[in-house]
Amino acid sequence: MAACELCEESGGEVLFRNEQLRIVLIADANYPGFCRVIWNAHVPEMTDLKPEERSVLMRTVCQVESALREVMQPEKINLASLGNMVPHLHWHLIPRFTDDAHFPNPVWAATQRQTADDILMQRRALLPALREAVVRYASCSA
Amino acid sequence: MAACELCEESGGEVLFRNEQLRIVLIADANYPGFCRVIWNAHVPEMTDLKPEERSVLMRTVCQVESALREVMQPEKINLASLGNMVPHLHWHLIPRFTDDAHFPNPVWAATQRQTADDILMQRRALLPALREAVVRYASCSA
Repeated sequence: MAACELCEESGGEVLFRNEQLRIVLIADANYPGFCRVIWNAHVPEMTDLKPEERSVLMRTVCQVESALREVMQPEKINLASLGNMVPHLHWHLIPRFTDDAHFPNPVWAATQRQTADDILMQRRALLPALREAVVRYASCSA
Repeated sequence: MAACELCEESGGEVLFRNEQLRIVLIADANYPGFCRVIWNAHVPEMTDLKPEERSVLMRTVCQVESALREVMQPEKINLASLGNMVPHLHWHLIPRFTDDAHFPNPVWAATQRQTADDILMQRRALLPALREAVVRYASCSA
């Protein structure tokens, strides 16, 4: 079996980590604020987790969604667990805007446009606040 | 505000429905077994639901995932809540196979190949068993 990159590496800038999972920020030039929630153990599917573990993971996904909405105020949040290439359970959380590179299509579809540099710079300027909000939400037990 | 197609129509062949949500089977020629779990009320995001409602929805998503794995034995399950075009909360559940039209890319990316007709026919032949399994899992309170 080939080595798994999410077993060997963090998979991004770690914003929060506990025994079960970690939240990372992805350096995607077109999508400032793109986060992933990665289950630490190597399992491929949600239903490979125990029901309590699924709840913990989705609670964290929703906490990151809350942080993204509060700070970035996107048009829409996109959530996905795919893992066809890296079958190690991880959730993509992507804040979407009507002027982003693929809207209204998924980010995996053909590019629709290039977002203006000043818009992307404004969004990148929100990342310090996003880091703070992710930690604040993820540290909350509710 | 434009009419919402998931408020006005079922969105597919309804396999299961309760007061909160419904499970539909999508007639996608390349993806036999493609299901959606649709929240009945018009809300855009997971975090627009109460925490208990999020749990109900994700439990149902996992029940459909279990049915898909049992019956179709896919290489991978893909889960996604996007809603950029139809901002009414719905989850895509797509059983993926190494010989499917887009593998290993997401189904929204460029087509990689045409799956052989006999393979697609074999998968379509599983749909009666899938319908039965979805109802069986969704009717279980666990």
